[in-house]
Amino acid sequence: MTTTTLPLVQAGQGAQDGACCAPIAREPLGEGEAAELAVLLKAVADPVRLRLLSMIGSHAGGEACVCDLTDAFDLTAPTISHHLKVLRTAGLIGSERRGTWVYYWIIPEAVNRLGALFAPLTDR
Amino acid sequence: MTTTTLPLVQAGQGAQDGACCAPIAREPLGEGEAAELAVLLKAVADPVRLRLLSMIGSHAGGEACVCDLTDAFDLTAPTISHHLKVLRTAGLIGSERRGTWVYYWIIPEAVNRLGALFAPLTDR
Repeated sequence: MTTTTLPLVQAGQGAQDGACCAPIAREPLGEGEAAELAVLLKAVADPVRLRLLSMIGSHAGGEACVCDLTDAFDLTAPTISHHLKVLRTAGLIGSERRGTWVYYWIIPEAVNRLGALFAPLTDR
Repeated sequence: MTTTTLPLVQAGQGAQDGACCAPIAREPLGEGEAAELAVLLKAVADPVRLRLLSMIGSHAGGEACVCDLTDAFDLTAPTISHHLKVLRTAGLIGSERRGTWVYYWIIPEAVNRLGALFAPLTDR
């Protein structure tokens, strides 16, 4: 998979009323970028995976053991593991086994890519 | 549907290494918020809908006629209409019929809500 950078448009282009100036609202996305971003978005477009991502990111030390994550859900361990695998396959989290448990952490670049797409540029 | 606000966490909490400080990586999301955000994310988690959203937002005047959108895709008009309906149902775009055509525009609040979730807070 090739990596493409998001188009960064100068302030003032498009969205003439200034009401919405997120990058997605300022320049048409190309097919390749849209396909890549859709993969990331599909991975986070699920309530359990959103919660897992936020629990991992906010856990002490920036990483969480699978043992820290299961109690918050009324779901079986295999179901939680499935959701974690979807996040990992999309490149949103990394993981490593240490002894009995697998530990997970957020990949900042992937989250930031979504941030760059939707972020309102209020500081311009 | 009730509206909930996203938790805004003070800078410095969580993500001790500072590598990722998007709100989603700083505080666990509640069930209700996660469910609402997943609805928005499912709507944008498709390459065609991402491209439609960016084409609408970047079109002159901040709105686009369906007649401006179809040529960029090798898809039938009903398929494009289906994707526009998904975006509209999720609250990401508004629409109005004027004469022959339906016009679409982005709802900034919905896009900004996703921006608030994933935005890296690099200016802190």
